[in-house]
Amino acid sequence: MIKFSASLPFDRRLAPQDIRGSMAHAAMLAACGIITAEEAEAIQAGLQEIAAELKEGRFPFELEDEDIHMNIEKRLTEKIGAAGGKLHTARSRNDQVALDLHLFLMEEIREIDKMVADLQEVFLELARKFMGVVLPGYTHLQRAQPVLFSHHLLAYFWMLQRDRERLAGAYRRADLMPLGAGALSGTSFPIDRRMVAASLGFTRLYENSMDAVSDRDYIVEFLSCAALLMAHLSRLSEELILWSSAEFGFIELDDAYTTGSSMMPQKKNPDVAELARGKTGRVYGSLMALLTVLKGLPLTYNKDLQEDKEGLFDTVDTLKALLPLMGEMLLTMRINRPRMEAAAQDDFACATDLADYLVRRGVAFREAHRIVGELIACAEKAGLKLKELTPEVRRRFHPALGEEIGHLLDPLAVVKARSCRGGTAPEAVQEQLRLAEQALQDQNKLFQQTTNPA
Amino acid sequence: MIKFSASLPFDRRLAPQDIRGSMAHAAMLAACGIITAEEAEAIQAGLQEIAAELKEGRFPFELEDEDIHMNIEKRLTEKIGAAGGKLHTARSRNDQVALDLHLFLMEEIREIDKMVADLQEVFLELARKFMGVVLPGYTHLQRAQPVLFSHHLLAYFWMLQRDRERLAGAYRRADLMPLGAGALSGTSFPIDRRMVAASLGFTRLYENSMDAVSDRDYIVEFLSCAALLMAHLSRLSEELILWSSAEFGFIELDDAYTTGSSMMPQKKNPDVAELARGKTGRVYGSLMALLTVLKGLPLTYNKDLQEDKEGLFDTVDTLKALLPLMGEMLLTMRINRPRMEAAAQDDFACATDLADYLVRRGVAFREAHRIVGELIACAEKAGLKLKELTPEVRRRFHPALGEEIGHLLDPLAVVKARSCRGGTAPEAVQEQLRLAEQALQDQNKLFQQTTNPA
Amino acid sequence: MIKFSASLPFDRRLAPQDIRGSMAHAAMLAACGIITAEEAEAIQAGLQEIAAELKEGRFPFELEDEDIHMNIEKRLTEKIGAAGGKLHTARSRNDQVALDLHLFLMEEIREIDKMVADLQEVFLELARKFMGVVLPGYTHLQRAQPVLFSHHLLAYFWMLQRDRERLAGAYRRADLMPLGAGALSGTSFPIDRRMVAASLGFTRLYENSMDAVSDRDYIVEFLSCAALLMAHLSRLSEELILWSSAEFGFIELDDAYTTGSSMMPQKKNPDVAELARGKTGRVYGSLMALLTVLKGLPLTYNKDLQEDKEGLFDTVDTLKALLPLMGEMLLTMRINRPRMEAAAQDDFACATDLADYLVRRGVAFREAHRIVGELIACAEKAGLKLKELTPEVRRRFHPALGEEIGHLLDPLAVVKARSCRGGTAPEAVQEQLRLAEQALQDQNKLFQQTTNPA
Amino acid sequence: MIKFSASLPFDRRLAPQDIRGSMAHAAMLAACGIITAEEAEAIQAGLQEIAAELKEGRFPFELEDEDIHMNIEKRLTEKIGAAGGKLHTARSRNDQVALDLHLFLMEEIREIDKMVADLQEVFLELARKFMGVVLPGYTHLQRAQPVLFSHHLLAYFWMLQRDRERLAGAYRRADLMPLGAGALSGTSFPIDRRMVAASLGFTRLYENSMDAVSDRDYIVEFLSCAALLMAHLSRLSEELILWSSAEFGFIELDDAYTTGSSMMPQKKNPDVAELARGKTGRVYGSLMALLTVLKGLPLTYNKDLQEDKEGLFDTVDTLKALLPLMGEMLLTMRINRPRMEAAAQDDFACATDLADYLVRRGVAFREAHRIVGELIACAEKAGLKLKELTPEVRRRFHPALGEEIGHLLDPLAVVKARSCRGGTAPEAVQEQLRLAEQALQDQNKLFQQTTNPA
Repeated sequence: MIKFSASLPFDRRLAPQDIRGSMAHAAMLAACGIITAEEAEAIQAGLQEIAAELKEGRFPFELEDEDIHMNIEKRLTEKIGAAGGKLHTARSRNDQVALDLHLFLMEEIREIDKMVADLQEVFLELARKFMGVVLPGYTHLQRAQPVLFSHHLLAYFWMLQRDRERLAGAYRRADLMPLGAGALSGTSFPIDRRMVAASLGFTRLYENSMDAVSDRDYIVEFLSCAALLMAHLSRLSEELILWSSAEFGFIELDDAYTTGSSMMPQKKNPDVAELARGKTGRVYGSLMALLTVLKGLPLTYNKDLQEDKEGLFDTVDTLKALLPLMGEMLLTMRINRPRMEAAAQDDFACATDLADYLVRRGVAFREAHRIVGELIACAEKAGLKLKELTPEVRRRFHPALGEEIGHLLDPLAVVKARSCRGGTAPEAVQEQLRLAEQALQDQNKLFQQTTNPA
Repeated sequence: MIKFSASLPFDRRLAPQDIRGSMAHAAMLAACGIITAEEAEAIQAGLQEIAAELKEGRFPFELEDEDIHMNIEKRLTEKIGAAGGKLHTARSRNDQVALDLHLFLMEEIREIDKMVADLQEVFLELARKFMGVVLPGYTHLQRAQPVLFSHHLLAYFWMLQRDRERLAGAYRRADLMPLGAGALSGTSFPIDRRMVAASLGFTRLYENSMDAVSDRDYIVEFLSCAALLMAHLSRLSEELILWSSAEFGFIELDDAYTTGSSMMPQKKNPDVAELARGKTGRVYGSLMALLTVLKGLPLTYNKDLQEDKEGLFDTVDTLKALLPLMGEMLLTMRINRPRMEAAAQDDFACATDLADYLVRRGVAFREAHRIVGELIACAEKAGLKLKELTPEVRRRFHPALGEEIGHLLDPLAVVKARSCRGGTAPEAVQEQLRLAEQALQDQNKLFQQTTNPA
Repeated sequence: MIKFSASLPFDRRLAPQDIRGSMAHAAMLAACGIITAEEAEAIQAGLQEIAAELKEGRFPFELEDEDIHMNIEKRLTEKIGAAGGKLHTARSRNDQVALDLHLFLMEEIREIDKMVADLQEVFLELARKFMGVVLPGYTHLQRAQPVLFSHHLLAYFWMLQRDRERLAGAYRRADLMPLGAGALSGTSFPIDRRMVAASLGFTRLYENSMDAVSDRDYIVEFLSCAALLMAHLSRLSEELILWSSAEFGFIELDDAYTTGSSMMPQKKNPDVAELARGKTGRVYGSLMALLTVLKGLPLTYNKDLQEDKEGLFDTVDTLKALLPLMGEMLLTMRINRPRMEAAAQDDFACATDLADYLVRRGVAFREAHRIVGELIACAEKAGLKLKELTPEVRRRFHPALGEEIGHLLDPLAVVKARSCRGGTAPEAVQEQLRLAEQALQDQNKLFQQTTNPA
Repeated sequence: MIKFSASLPFDRRLAPQDIRGSMAHAAMLAACGIITAEEAEAIQAGLQEIAAELKEGRFPFELEDEDIHMNIEKRLTEKIGAAGGKLHTARSRNDQVALDLHLFLMEEIREIDKMVADLQEVFLELARKFMGVVLPGYTHLQRAQPVLFSHHLLAYFWMLQRDRERLAGAYRRADLMPLGAGALSGTSFPIDRRMVAASLGFTRLYENSMDAVSDRDYIVEFLSCAALLMAHLSRLSEELILWSSAEFGFIELDDAYTTGSSMMPQKKNPDVAELARGKTGRVYGSLMALLTVLKGLPLTYNKDLQEDKEGLFDTVDTLKALLPLMGEMLLTMRINRPRMEAAAQDDFACATDLADYLVRRGVAFREAHRIVGELIACAEKAGLKLKELTPEVRRRFHPALGEEIGHLLDPLAVVKARSCRGGTAPEAVQEQLRLAEQALQDQNKLFQQTTNPA
């Protein structure tokens, strides 16, 4: 039974936050005259010793004490005697646990945001490095129109940018200080919640004690952000796996991020990308798990809420392991430019441009669309490429097609034509890069402005 | 096959957005000299006629044309001839569909946000109306400490406040204008995306055309917001169901929101609350469905993405039906104050206050905690209430307990003592109300600032 | 409110089951002397008229009557007067609804099982048709070892076989007759539940009335089966999409199951396969939705359970639309045998066979493994194929490799060597085909044995 | 990178299965003349030593060797030299991993099935022990009709019975022997797969090597079973939590399965029930996680599939910890019969019986229904109980109601009247108990028939 209900095996991870929270609480209790300055000092000295014990692996965990919070408080009393028994004044396990989890998640969001930013930098670097390389853009996994590889890569930059915007939102909902909520109804001691909040780096307080101990929104919101981030990484991974296949042959991942068999040294399995794709499942699962826990749960604290931690920890660990690996894998990836460009040499890819050409000659778009379709169907039936059709043949479809149209059939020309904002033309992509750099910097400032007291 | 892959049965709902988007597109094409002013006027007149046909149920839908976009374009050409064929210049089905869905969701988020705000108002009104009513606060569904009913209700106010903060975030990610992305790579026409964005009420553009046609983040994010909102409503519903039971007997829901049997007229089944709780499932399911669709999907558009709509529509409809009903149900709910207050008369609920009392007399918190526990255990064993213990008996546990402690045993006194910020004391709840009103107003301003051109 | 809580818009689909159930119930009531034979006849005649009205679209649905059950009962009384009011004797809405849903699902499982069987037949037919065609087998989307295309296709046969085993289990859990459970506690009338069960094709009764009205296991179990079936179809679809890409080029899907653009007639988007992959999301979502509904729901009937239907109906419709389409799409698919076989001509694919060859010459497996790895690494470094290495060079790695090994390097030889049971050698695949035909027949018998009274 | 992709930290749990599988494989290799009897003996002796090392915690795990399979093989070669390198003949990591996981799950399903059976026994015992105790049966959490507590408890027996039927189905799909599939295409060695299967307790072989290494159906199916089992336990837990509340007061859980606070010793938080309800989330989540992994995954082995284990292990551990605790908690639960029976004394609960009484007097059911509804509404309006209405008053509604009807108003009489099969009358519940005992025995035999060689 103890084994079943004890949270120590997983919540011991919250020890640093628990100690940090208790230090702030003790300082406030003293400042408010609820305990003496000497008691506060003794508590803080004791907690520092405990922090050292934990760091050095000397802390004597006791499963019977169920959770990390009671383990630390008991140890404190062993160390400093009666004063240790005063630490919990004006506090309950419910608001204490909530505080620790808020502190944990705030720190982790900062770190994960930094890692996502680093991955964004990787995409910027790759976009610069591969500028000019053309490959097919796909719809339905069919070659559709040629694009710059840099343009393709930058699509991921913007997904990550939105991920960071969302993470900042999750941070804002985590940035609510619960201490003072007591078990559920507040406390009768004249405490100063603002002081605790300020010293721990919070900018907002929970304004309702029952909400403070019931709320797990911030965790669900973080898991939702993580789920979308993983969806993005799974899409990227799918593309890396496709591009690494013999059939595509567009890229080669570095040996460090693939595995082979000692017997088939030429086989390079894109393990990291596959795991990234697969681990999407566990993050989706953890989101669904916590949503299920919350469904139909009455206020305020129910033991069900203890199930909030393991899925969160696992998701944090998954992201923190994966994000840097993805970046390194991308940076060390080699590309096979000839194969990319050969694949883009599918002259049907210029269909849109031919139609646009006719539109500029006064043909209505839908009509131009129809004409080009017939031209291409004819070429295909004849087993010829568009450029192999004679002007005479082309003229039969529309007089303007009898003119020199070779410049419209070159993938790079097709790319260059798309110069409107957000398009794949080199100049548009350069402008996009500039906007991306700016967006990255703006987002980076976000967490630099708030002081992180940790 | 057409039946299987056609989206018309559900995307016809996007007709208003499609027309609005096309009107803006045509105006821009003319402004940029890509079509003539006369053509643009003809297109807009034709679209207005179509809008009227749709409104009046006269529009001749054709399943063979697969989706609403082609249905409208075809109809336009029937009406205005060749000029109709020019509307699609510099546009592709992919960016057109994306535009419509963005417009749809932006409008719906505004409406849903308004409905959540209305529900918040209900909680404020109830909190004012029931100020002073005491009921037990529960942890583990066990009576723990008495609280003001207003305080309990306001906990939901703050949950909804966070829901609105999140909805504003989802709106921001929906507020990205995709038109100009073409099929995936942009367009070769000299269009003005800013003009389209401004005329449709967007503040940001997609800066990458491949991202623009692949992105479904904004829908997932909205569904995540909706899932948490439903989690909150399911928790509220669970409480309403409990409180309506014969065993709790705290409230009576109005007949309009319950059903009985003609044979058991006294039985009032809280159907709306049960459905709200049950419908949480479908919203969670729609979130999971779209996350599944996105997992491992390569760029850019894949037909899988057509699956983005039905779950979204269903979620929007669920919220828009449910939110006003919840508000009306709460406003018409009657409370049984005597039963609430009798339930709060469990004198063990004051255990924390007794301990705090000893702490103020200099006993360390953990020691005070132990003493009170022994006192209560003793009373319980004797089958007595705390106030039935004589001072002599109480003194045996601690001298200070021999004094007059009756004022600590009254639930209202317990409530009043919790006067720190966010606590359940009447003055603290009044202050909370003030803060809530302010927060509500601040959040309300959000969508008033941005112009809604709809 | 009526609109929110009425189930008529979706449960009208259960009209045939409702009528069938009521006919059986009336017959039983008469047989047990609870109503007269004349009354039963009048009821049955009235119900038959109603069935005709429903079939012909003449039935006057009334949303105010909330659900299909009350709509039918009211209509019956309009038609036959007082006797109509006797139909509901010894029955409650709760067990009536449960009955209808059981009947519905039993019928649908039979039909879906038949469709899965038809799809299995398709795989058998394709396996026979393409016998002898070799393509690469992949791990990690890297070419690993050559296999027969027939072998690859038959892998899906066995997945579907397990799907059918599971569907049979779901059927068994649906095959429990609930009528007689009343609202929750049974009935005081001397009814004969066995008679109703027999006449409706049930083989088991619910033995506990509270269970009978609370149970939704059979729906969850069906949705679980459907989720796995969709997982299988999504894997198949992914392969069809890959194989249809220009890069793989292994197959060409028939125009009927792809869409192109009028402008890019050569582009064949595998829409059906993409939709199949995408619709996996909605089925997963419906499973998660119902599991969420059930979580923490006390006995017996709660209105939440009304949420059991829409996800079920949608899943049934999805499967019934998709399964035949998948079969037709597969049957009309053309293969590009030269491209498949060229892709299989990757001589490193024979690494395992070379190692096995050394093992037969007495080398320990791990040692053989190491030797072959070195040989291949050497060839790769030299830019040569294995067959281009001279015997002298090969001999340096191991004397036995200096012998004639050309027969080991041919993909077809590699395939033929895997002749153990379940392997890819032609003879093994022929035996597998035989076993598959037998398994199919055995499974087909399952529902033929039980009488379907429908 | 190694840390990210290594599976050793979790798959070391499969060591016993890996050793068992290798012993069987070695014996078969010798029997088929692929290795010598001496080599097989050396391998088996070495594996036994390794098993001992593992058992005693002396095994030198090496993370660099990535997984448990390679760790064991390497250790074997250290111990027995070259012969160790022969163990992997005719085998690949892919089919080896699959084998271990099949063996693991088969064992665990047997154990979990036994635990579910034990929990069924608990319900039988409680049903016998509490026979005769009446409490309200609820719909919509409103008191509806009185039932026997034994009847209510037995509802859970039947849910568990279906869980066991499903587990047997999952076992059948796990009972497929994959060895011989090699990496994906089979093996060229003349192995005897039947022999391996028989010696390890399998009854079926995979008949397709590609299916054998790709299939994770059996794990998904097990997780689906577990999800429904948890749904059942969550429903039971919700009821135990409700019944333990002060408001219901129907039961008292033993101290061993609740926690209090040292300060509020009277507060008994039903922690185990709450955790059971909460842990439903993680099991649902693990199901969704694996379904997500499988979505759109091409054949055959992909590294994504490594994600199949942790959710499975966690689910197994959750069930094995929870099931015995639930049983013990139920066995030690005390009931408050007076409160249950007082709650059942709601005389409106007999409405159905009054209507049935009128039906027996010739009134049509719907008419009787209406009459009783009016009678009850009248009593309610007058603030009287039904038995307080005089015969004269009652007669006004229907002459038959003027007779002595007191016997219809007694909850126990209401219970006794429901004597049809599956009803709540004592005799019907006794018969149900007999059927339950029989069903339990029949299901118990299932795994006794197949030999478990473990």
